[in-house]
Amino acid sequence: MKVLVVGANGQVGKHLVKFIQETDGMEAKAMIRKEEQASYFKKLGAETVLVDLEDDTNTIAEAYHGVDAVVFTAGSGPNTGPDKTVLIDLDAAVKTIEAAKLKGVDRYVMISSFDTTREAIQGAPSSFAPYVVAKHYADDWLRRTDLDYTIIHPGMLTNDEGSGQVEAAETVERGEIPREDVAHVILATLENEATIGKEFQVVGGSKMVKEAIKSL
Amino acid sequence: MKVLVVGANGQVGKHLVKFIQETDGMEAKAMIRKEEQASYFKKLGAETVLVDLEDDTNTIAEAYHGVDAVVFTAGSGPNTGPDKTVLIDLDAAVKTIEAAKLKGVDRYVMISSFDTTREAIQGAPSSFAPYVVAKHYADDWLRRTDLDYTIIHPGMLTNDEGSGQVEAAETVERGEIPREDVAHVILATLENEATIGKEFQVVGGSKMVKEAIKSL
Repeated sequence: MKVLVVGANGQVGKHLVKFIQETDGMEAKAMIRKEEQASYFKKLGAETVLVDLEDDTNTIAEAYHGVDAVVFTAGSGPNTGPDKTVLIDLDAAVKTIEAAKLKGVDRYVMISSFDTTREAIQGAPSSFAPYVVAKHYADDWLRRTDLDYTIIHPGMLTNDEGSGQVEAAETVERGEIPREDVAHVILATLENEATIGKEFQVVGGSKMVKEAIKSL
Repeated sequence: MKVLVVGANGQVGKHLVKFIQETDGMEAKAMIRKEEQASYFKKLGAETVLVDLEDDTNTIAEAYHGVDAVVFTAGSGPNTGPDKTVLIDLDAAVKTIEAAKLKGVDRYVMISSFDTTREAIQGAPSSFAPYVVAKHYADDWLRRTDLDYTIIHPGMLTNDEGSGQVEAAETVERGEIPREDVAHVILATLENEATIGKEFQVVGGSKMVKEAIKSL
């Protein structure tokens, strides 16, 4: 299985490409924005492809050649300006979904925000609300496709070392999760077809990642 | 016909409420954000209702009591921050659409931007692109409802006095249009059921507004 990692140069993306490369039968294609980001991935033996997510759907779709699955882990993040929130977290996400439909790449794993419900929008502090809105509509767009999607809603991301242990369910108590463990969760999701059509929240916990994903 | 004007205190909204009040068989309910905005509408004999568009759908829906049609002419505009673009032009628009469904108010007229296609997003200058994205997804949301909608795509708005003459079609050459004429176009749209399920671009031109709307 060749996995296109959109946002490979992010911290979750870097862990994920490494884990995919270490997994038998899987290989990563790292979608990056700048040539100088390529060396990390080349050292891992991963293919890279240069794409500006502000390009149009057809241009983005060229990166899907030979790909079996897409993981969207790009993100302006809540700390960039809300202009990029609209253009990346919402519109670029939708373009990568449309590109998947265009190229017949059915498997699509979206890394969303912990809670993207309408209630979460209303409850969000005003600085964070535009980000939640963007993720809300991107998730909604994906749900309305026929793609084999999974939507992962991780808790607050940390740079702590991964423990390999999480709690995952449709809803869990809000909590933290190391970015390394999010990458483990994505890998386990790709390896488990029972996750297709599902979405789940995930935070640090006491179950091994594969078990937690299996029990969804 | 009682028409709820969302964004009544905007320049198009103020013209529109006036024209509605001057029309036999029609009355306006002006949705405004602050009590001090009410006096203009009270002088016209129009009802007012105080709503913060960042509230939730149920709260917004309370303003729909006794209403036969909704016009969305609220807008952060391209000149406010992109955070408000996300929260008002996209999310508040969607909430007013959902409120219409909730309250069984079928007639919904959306004042969009001149071109909200995917191509327009790609072609927009970066400062304007978030606004186009927001309007794109709001329009898309409305099209996917069962509401009796019309989407109006006006050209560049000016404060010139209205001429009462426009050009309207599915696509027209980019051009200017006075806000007063946009209000005339909205009124003619509300008065003409043949506009249901349609969307059109409109700029200054040489046809009387009612004729231009009839010829769509």
